Amino acid sequence: MRSPFKRILFLAAIAGAVTSSNAIASPVSIAAELAQKAQDTSLALEIATDLTTEIGARLYGSDSEKRAAEWAVKRFLEYGFDKVWTESFPVENGWKRGLETASITSPAPQSLVITALGGSVATPAEGIEAEIALFKTIDAMLEQPEGSLTGKIAVVTQAMEIGGYAKISGPIRGEGPSEAARRGAIAFLMRSAGTDNDRMAHTGATSYLPDVPRIPAAALSVPDAQQLDRLSERFDSIRIKLLLTPQNLGTVTSQNVIAEITGSERPDEIVLLGAHLDSWDLGTGAIDDGAGVGIVMAAAKLIRDLPQAPKRTIRVVLFGAEEIGIVGGRFYAESHADELSSHIVATEADAGQGPVRTMNIGLGNPLDPTLTTIRNALKPLGIQAGRSNSSGGPDIAPMHRKGVPAIGLSMDTDDYFDLHHTANDTIDKIAPERINQSAAAFVTLAYLASELGGYYRSKP
Amino acid sequence: MRSPFKRILFLAAIAGAVTSSNAIASPVSIAAELAQKAQDTSLALEIATDLTTEIGARLYGSDSEKRAAEWAVKRFLEYGFDKVWTESFPVENGWKRGLETASITSPAPQSLVITALGGSVATPAEGIEAEIALFKTIDAMLEQPEGSLTGKIAVVTQAMEIGGYAKISGPIRGEGPSEAARRGAIAFLMRSAGTDNDRMAHTGATSYLPDVPRIPAAALSVPDAQQLDRLSERFDSIRIKLLLTPQNLGTVTSQNVIAEITGSERPDEIVLLGAHLDSWDLGTGAIDDGAGVGIVMAAAKLIRDLPQAPKRTIRVVLFGAEEIGIVGGRFYAESHADELSSHIVATEADAGQGPVRTMNIGLGNPLDPTLTTIRNALKPLGIQAGRSNSSGGPDIAPMHRKGVPAIGLSMDTDDYFDLHHTANDTIDKIAPERINQSAAAFVTLAYLASELGGYYRSKP
Repeated sequence: MRSPFKRILFLAAIAGAVTSSNAIASPVSIAAELAQKAQDTSLALEIATDLTTEIGARLYGSDSEKRAAEWAVKRFLEYGFDKVWTESFPVENGWKRGLETASITSPAPQSLVITALGGSVATPAEGIEAEIALFKTIDAMLEQPEGSLTGKIAVVTQAMEIGGYAKISGPIRGEGPSEAARRGAIAFLMRSAGTDNDRMAHTGATSYLPDVPRIPAAALSVPDAQQLDRLSERFDSIRIKLLLTPQNLGTVTSQNVIAEITGSERPDEIVLLGAHLDSWDLGTGAIDDGAGVGIVMAAAKLIRDLPQAPKRTIRVVLFGAEEIGIVGGRFYAESHADELSSHIVATEADAGQGPVRTMNIGLGNPLDPTLTTIRNALKPLGIQAGRSNSSGGPDIAPMHRKGVPAIGLSMDTDDYFDLHHTANDTIDKIAPERINQSAAAFVTLAYLASELGGYYRSKP
Repeated sequence: MRSPFKRILFLAAIAGAVTSSNAIASPVSIAAELAQKAQDTSLALEIATDLTTEIGARLYGSDSEKRAAEWAVKRFLEYGFDKVWTESFPVENGWKRGLETASITSPAPQSLVITALGGSVATPAEGIEAEIALFKTIDAMLEQPEGSLTGKIAVVTQAMEIGGYAKISGPIRGEGPSEAARRGAIAFLMRSAGTDNDRMAHTGATSYLPDVPRIPAAALSVPDAQQLDRLSERFDSIRIKLLLTPQNLGTVTSQNVIAEITGSERPDEIVLLGAHLDSWDLGTGAIDDGAGVGIVMAAAKLIRDLPQAPKRTIRVVLFGAEEIGIVGGRFYAESHADELSSHIVATEADAGQGPVRTMNIGLGNPLDPTLTTIRNALKPLGIQAGRSNSSGGPDIAPMHRKGVPAIGLSMDTDDYFDLHHTANDTIDKIAPERINQSAAAFVTLAYLASELGGYYRSKP
């Protein structure tokens, strides 16, 4: 793939011995060397390991999330970034998990594995014990008239299909508790939004509607939901006891961490690489989104280590409070509204470890010739051209809606929703060759978007 | 494999239309038909599903274990067994799990996934908070002098190798807490005896030595043990807070459930099929040992459904309180001492779902010609001849030590120690084709050992 000549130049450049090597090597060859470096080292995995080990879980607004931000600032400074700062913002619905237990009390007493949905209210201190009303689909529950679930614990055991996360996270995890409460239910249980069959419940944000009582809401592990399905086929009445003691903390503070490599020729033009620093509290946030943090920090660090910075500024943003409603991403789009016009393109790593499979775009000018160069540079990594309606990632979407061009490096998520939002989201699940390929993809995109000078907005 | 003629005879026999068909069909062909039936139906899986759904976990001495025994008696009676009864016995160390939480308090505060070892004492109500002394092997801990761990939480992160369960379960899970206490430790944590990397801790019995203080003891999930390994390489001092609130219940009662198909010609000679009805409390005891219960009950039920019972009595024993020290198996060997001489051979299914890979023997007369017939009958199931030092299974070992010939149908345990003693031991982990093959193997062995008249003790 590489000529001996280029290899020698690259090594010289890395060693800092030949300061003018960039004048000879083309941007494409430098990008290829960066990608190779990303794959030869395991820097992305090292960063993700450090974060998930030294900090662990990083719930929005928590001390841990703050420690993670301090950790990231320190790391960016160690890496020699030109500017490093944080931007704080309030998050209204601060929350802390408490005890969470559930059991079938009759007719077949046994414990259940559950976890509170993020933002759930607590049960009374003595718990709730009631008959369940089980629905195999959310639609079956929604067909019930108001008042029909009075005094019952509503249970929805609809399975998440592969690729069907959005069908569960919104209508069931988000709106299910309020729709159940509207029909009189006193608590809500759902089958986890996950594709595994581990005895692990998947948390995730719920959101109460304003016009109905707020009832405690939790997810059952997939085997526990299946157990209730079987029991409901065998017995007319099943009773469950549920105890949840989370605390509503009111308004808490989160922060975005921002670090820049100043562009050597066009410092006011920004290529933005994002990931989110917060995680749910059950695991250590390795695939969601420690991997993404490792990928974008590693990509930027490799660029930082070049003898000369690329033309445009590379800005890394590690967003806070993504999990509770993309609060950091929305805050960024609002507070940076004045400079969004100088954001050339933005992308985010928030779908696990990779590998990256397609380059999707969300660009006003999809015919800019540099895109062909970038696509060709990604091909050796096995990355194909993909969709043309990308928002760039969850934290990028708010700025994309305000006109920032987005590119999405779409990852293989074969294991992502097995682990997502569970205690099982730990660093041991990440394979070096997978995350390294992702880092290679992001460094390729970031470097070329900075160096080649393409313009991706629709022509005025 | 089967002739049309035999197939017709078999169908007729199953239908009860030709009462003398056994006079024509050979024992080997009947065994083959039984094996085929075990594979064509999913009776073993149905039984295991019913048990794990309608009862759930079945901790020794618990109400659930009693309900399981009642469930089994009812099921055996429904199946038309000739004799069904229970035999109760005391278990000295009754125990009930309580709350169990652990967290690193410094330098990197985060929660840990643990579970109390079976029989562990509780921490004080406010928990224990102390510095840890981490050892990568149990030998490294044992090298420490007495008093060297005073006031510390001893942590042993030695990994279980594939096939290395006994190296962990005895020296670390069993004796580790007392050896740590002997050196002054105030609590003991071990890396789970498991081969998975799920965030699931594996419980299992510990046993305190008489001459040292009893200290709280728990298992860390594998990722949590790895996390402590990483942290211990980065920080000099790590502090952990541990809370365990299990209860010692004193002497409790367990029971063996026994069911017989009376032999048609030699009713006093017993072919014994065992499994254990109790399970640990975290999962629903599907692979350990609901699968075994399903396998031996299904095998016996298929024989019960023959038009004529085989010559020797088939006795199924579902042992109680296996997990806390093979209490039911030892009780059986003692309380049935007088009739052990009429036990022709005994076997047990207690290694998960299968498939069975080898037929191991523990026989005084390994040259009895019927063994060749049995081995040949198992070959179509992919089962080879194996070891000649089998004890027949954990609950069979005590009677085997008193002279009962044993045959072990050794199963593939590729996933067994991933799930073993965890919350993840649930029925969804069992594949029909795997458990069905096991039931086919057990019904083949049981039928032929009963019908062929072999004699497996050493000649007097």
